[in-house]
Amino acid sequence: MKRVPYSDAVTILVAILESRGFNPARAKLSAELICEANRDGVLSHGLARFPNLLSAIESGIVIPDAEPVLTWSGGAIERWDGQQGPGNLNAHFSMARAMELADENGIGCVALSNTNHWMRGGNTGWQAVRSGYIGMCWTNTMPNLPPWGSTHPLVGNNPLVIGIPRVDGPVVLDMAMSQFSYGALSSYASSGQTLPVTGGYDTNGHLTDDPAAISESVRPLPIGFWKGSGLAIVLDLMAALLSGGRATYQIAMNSGKETEVSQIFMAFSPPEHPGLADRVVESLKSADEEVFYPGQRTAKTREESDRLGIQVDDELWSRLNEIAGIR
Amino acid sequence: MKRVPYSDAVTILVAILESRGFNPARAKLSAELICEANRDGVLSHGLARFPNLLSAIESGIVIPDAEPVLTWSGGAIERWDGQQGPGNLNAHFSMARAMELADENGIGCVALSNTNHWMRGGNTGWQAVRSGYIGMCWTNTMPNLPPWGSTHPLVGNNPLVIGIPRVDGPVVLDMAMSQFSYGALSSYASSGQTLPVTGGYDTNGHLTDDPAAISESVRPLPIGFWKGSGLAIVLDLMAALLSGGRATYQIAMNSGKETEVSQIFMAFSPPEHPGLADRVVESLKSADEEVFYPGQRTAKTREESDRLGIQVDDELWSRLNEIAGIR
Repeated sequence: MKRVPYSDAVTILVAILESRGFNPARAKLSAELICEANRDGVLSHGLARFPNLLSAIESGIVIPDAEPVLTWSGGAIERWDGQQGPGNLNAHFSMARAMELADENGIGCVALSNTNHWMRGGNTGWQAVRSGYIGMCWTNTMPNLPPWGSTHPLVGNNPLVIGIPRVDGPVVLDMAMSQFSYGALSSYASSGQTLPVTGGYDTNGHLTDDPAAISESVRPLPIGFWKGSGLAIVLDLMAALLSGGRATYQIAMNSGKETEVSQIFMAFSPPEHPGLADRVVESLKSADEEVFYPGQRTAKTREESDRLGIQVDDELWSRLNEIAGIR
Repeated sequence: MKRVPYSDAVTILVAILESRGFNPARAKLSAELICEANRDGVLSHGLARFPNLLSAIESGIVIPDAEPVLTWSGGAIERWDGQQGPGNLNAHFSMARAMELADENGIGCVALSNTNHWMRGGNTGWQAVRSGYIGMCWTNTMPNLPPWGSTHPLVGNNPLVIGIPRVDGPVVLDMAMSQFSYGALSSYASSGQTLPVTGGYDTNGHLTDDPAAISESVRPLPIGFWKGSGLAIVLDLMAALLSGGRATYQIAMNSGKETEVSQIFMAFSPPEHPGLADRVVESLKSADEEVFYPGQRTAKTREESDRLGIQVDDELWSRLNEIAGIR
């Protein structure tokens, strides 16, 4: 693992993305969103996924210049078709549009079909809170989690993101329905670590804390056993029904590749409740310093990244430089 | 456990509620909502909680004739003050109002402050799906769950309910953030059963499947360790911020009693996506018969209850008859 200046990483990604058909503005935003994950310490969902994005562009799954198209409006909720555009740009657009709808209606919702992996979902939560909105969004995924009662990966691990604005540190939750996301499993595996708690089954059906064994079996544990399993099912249904898009069981059905996913973005423009978020956070911290609220470590990590550079895997960094150089 | 006709149970509850200051219409609706929990097999959150409701009325926590008052409108989202009315009636009103807002705006949200325990949250999910809406609602609670990193009950177990309409069996999730709700712990304990999975800590700090030991320690496990803990925190913040009401840390702070809770009710009036919910359910069932979707067992239980009577604890039933007789 090495540290490189955030701006260097953005520059390299912009160069590569422009060479792949992104216009300058979209290349810049996409690069910033990807590097923001590393800047915030979410190494599993940032630059580490950039090679996958390039492959997806190459195979035609991600269409660089495709932008969402409005297909239906209910007033405070709209349906947009993501046109198979880049998932992070489509997500950014959708939360921005949900915030516009919230300006008019107090609450706004964009249901997005036909989009791609949003990479780091948390970005969209931070996007909302930075503008003063409560944000809530989730995505479905290809089938990669066995529902309770089954050993087959039939439901998605459908990450859910909720962000609450707060001046001294927003509260931003970003969680998959599995105890560990595949990105997290991959990060633990590549750094040679075991999981802090049991994360799923190995191919022999035994519970394990070995991240690679779980990735291989495609049998992570849902959080709360039947509860996370049930939550994954209803979040998938909501995303697909409201967007008019694909449900988990249809994703990757033919191609084996995860694309044409469905997502929900909600923004709430809350009336005043001065100081409440601060008092809630204080109530937790004053009772027990060991309690961390979701997103708490992010500000510190970000400050470190700005001072020392963002963390990036050595080999990956060499590879990105190579790709940028030989374009 | 005995079985009694649903209508007999409703009649007894109506008699008691009318004697406690409920007008006939409100007594009937409240009684039906309470008996619906038993009818659906959720014995922990129906008649079993009726004695608690009576105590709460007696001590002035629940005000029988109080109705919600509109305090702010953002268009598609409204703030209502529950005026310390009965939690189940306030919840029913709020979901009905959210559905009206969804008729106008495609999505509707009611943020309700100053209300009481809604008893069985699932009722409100069923209420939405019966009218063809996707419903989503949650409540905060008094502090009764240790957040990840702490042994003190500092966050609420904040049940979340999501309902998806479907002709051949709606999908309705009703889950607390703890692996087992206190109602569920109490049900397991009173029937002498151990929990199917580890549910929390005993007073010595050891993980246990003994429901009574967990109720005593007030240390249930959040689903997914840090994940359910984080979700409990953000759901509490959203409910309190949007409603202008109390957050978990403030609930029961002075009185030691759970009242003045905050709740969110959302209804979505989805545009058409014909047959999708059926296809999702079929995709699960055809892959593995052992997979149950949330709410699946309810229809069968309800049919049994209508045929054989609703299940109710013998002693509780005697006590309710006694209360109704001596009023």
